[in-house]
Amino acid sequence: MSSAALVEGVVAGDPRAVARAISLLEGDDPSADDLMRGIFRRTGRAYVIGVTGPPGAGKSTMVDRLVRAIRGDAGWPEVRDGEGPRVGVLAVDPTSPFTGGAVLGDRLRLQSHAGDDRVFIRSMATRGQLGGLARATGDAALVLDAAGCDVVVIETVGVGQDEVDIVGAADVSVVTLVPGTGDDVQALKAGIMEIGDIFVVNKADRDGADRLAAAIEAMLGLHDYEPGEWRPPVLRTVATRGSGIPDLLQAIHAFRTASPADHPLRGEAGSSRAERERRRSEARLRDILGRRFWAHLESVRLGPGELASIVAAVAAREVDPYTAASDLLARSVRPSAAP
Amino acid sequence: MSSAALVEGVVAGDPRAVARAISLLEGDDPSADDLMRGIFRRTGRAYVIGVTGPPGAGKSTMVDRLVRAIRGDAGWPEVRDGEGPRVGVLAVDPTSPFTGGAVLGDRLRLQSHAGDDRVFIRSMATRGQLGGLARATGDAALVLDAAGCDVVVIETVGVGQDEVDIVGAADVSVVTLVPGTGDDVQALKAGIMEIGDIFVVNKADRDGADRLAAAIEAMLGLHDYEPGEWRPPVLRTVATRGSGIPDLLQAIHAFRTASPADHPLRGEAGSSRAERERRRSEARLRDILGRRFWAHLESVRLGPGELASIVAAVAAREVDPYTAASDLLARSVRPSAAP
Repeated sequence: MSSAALVEGVVAGDPRAVARAISLLEGDDPSADDLMRGIFRRTGRAYVIGVTGPPGAGKSTMVDRLVRAIRGDAGWPEVRDGEGPRVGVLAVDPTSPFTGGAVLGDRLRLQSHAGDDRVFIRSMATRGQLGGLARATGDAALVLDAAGCDVVVIETVGVGQDEVDIVGAADVSVVTLVPGTGDDVQALKAGIMEIGDIFVVNKADRDGADRLAAAIEAMLGLHDYEPGEWRPPVLRTVATRGSGIPDLLQAIHAFRTASPADHPLRGEAGSSRAERERRRSEARLRDILGRRFWAHLESVRLGPGELASIVAAVAAREVDPYTAASDLLARSVRPSAAP
Repeated sequence: MSSAALVEGVVAGDPRAVARAISLLEGDDPSADDLMRGIFRRTGRAYVIGVTGPPGAGKSTMVDRLVRAIRGDAGWPEVRDGEGPRVGVLAVDPTSPFTGGAVLGDRLRLQSHAGDDRVFIRSMATRGQLGGLARATGDAALVLDAAGCDVVVIETVGVGQDEVDIVGAADVSVVTLVPGTGDDVQALKAGIMEIGDIFVVNKADRDGADRLAAAIEAMLGLHDYEPGEWRPPVLRTVATRGSGIPDLLQAIHAFRTASPADHPLRGEAGSSRAERERRRSEARLRDILGRRFWAHLESVRLGPGELASIVAAVAAREVDPYTAASDLLARSVRPSAAP
């Protein structure tokens, strides 16, 4: 399929084109640039919901229930036609070579939407370099946006920095915890408190739910909220039964309309949607520019194998990478006096 | 402290200089470049041990015991003098604004080495951009290396992509799991199998240890190991008592001397030490070059505020970032015909 045909398919909302587009992004395929260039101006409409939390917190089941609730909800200004919101779901897992991908286990539960052609579901996996997962996920969210999704839900497993970055870049972040596994202490330690706009104690029918909710409230209580600032609510759900999901949906709407007062603890991520979009755009531009500049050095500026020799010299400690970078920059950019 | 004095202090192994240097890296301070430039050629000697696993697996206690065992072990060719190995420990946690840093909870247990002046211990935290944690951690490992550490142990919490990258870049990766918390299934799902050179079932006196060890072995059994290839051993420890730690140390030595036959499943990371060093060097150079090029555009090539306007245009979907990157590149690099 040509890039133009793929862009056309994505914009038309063709599920096969969407799936193919996301595969290109995962594989860091060179034609992904043409794809993104083609769809980019069709993006920026979808509302992005991030859901994260430690392994075993029941995130997939919660997302499944949440998607059903969103589908039946008329309260989304993003909706572009009269048939209810289109929803895209990205489930993010680091690749395991044992599985050949990320679709396994509780991912399958999401297939209950398979009969609903207004729901796209996709597991994300990448084995690329640093930040590759976050980049591919961000771009995949744009693909879903261009394909007409009004709401995109990104579910991440784990509590790592990349997951924090992915979910922190969402328009609203839901942090899911579960009682009775020691997660209460561990999760608070692992830095996910700062990105939560909404906290959910899932499996709230278990022992320890009260204690966990109290621990979260106590952490939130360390901050003095100004009048008008968003104080993250601590909700309780039993996702397997769907209980508490309407409250979660309501909290998401409340957060959405409460912006830009926002969550004061989120730092960079906790700003207005326009500011978040600016930061995302800068990160995207820097990343693309860095890759393009490297490719330019390799294929235009330097002789064959020269960049590899420089890398080898750095590896052998014959030169430090800062000096090497300065030299490469000086050799490749125009003199300052030029127009 | 000037950069030169800081470099001198680090190379002399002064703990205050080391601590200050790592703080510069965490804060992405501009003077960090001078520091790294100054120390880089003194690096490349330390053997790096990565320890990862899900929250609650007892990694900190295990690292504590492992460090004690390493200190009493004469089998390290990296050792530069006759007083036993110097050991550096980096404990990686995403920052929480609630704590103002990462030093809390079970981190404190590592302080049992505080009286041993040949052990450096440091918690890492960063709130920087994508990949910032991995970059800062990699650079901090170089600081410890330059400061004379013969062995550097990096402990990461969580099972995210960034943690996989951090630990996957180590010379040997120890994956720690714990029975009875459902971690057996969750951890296998989360993609940490691929980076394990050595697996440890910690808290092996608990129910479920046999089942967990069998599950890991079963996963490993999915791969046909060629003769001479490293098949990751599955060890059992009770780190709180120190039991199993000698076996772990022995497995680390066995892996070290078995390279470069190596772990066939580690992909890029599972190559010879020289090849890993080359990849690390390329990633470092690309990263520095990307940041320098951006700074060059901002301060030399473009007018004041011009780059910000371009970012704003991308955010407003007036231009896509790929076209913007091409334009910026064309405006800044020398014509191909130039020398």
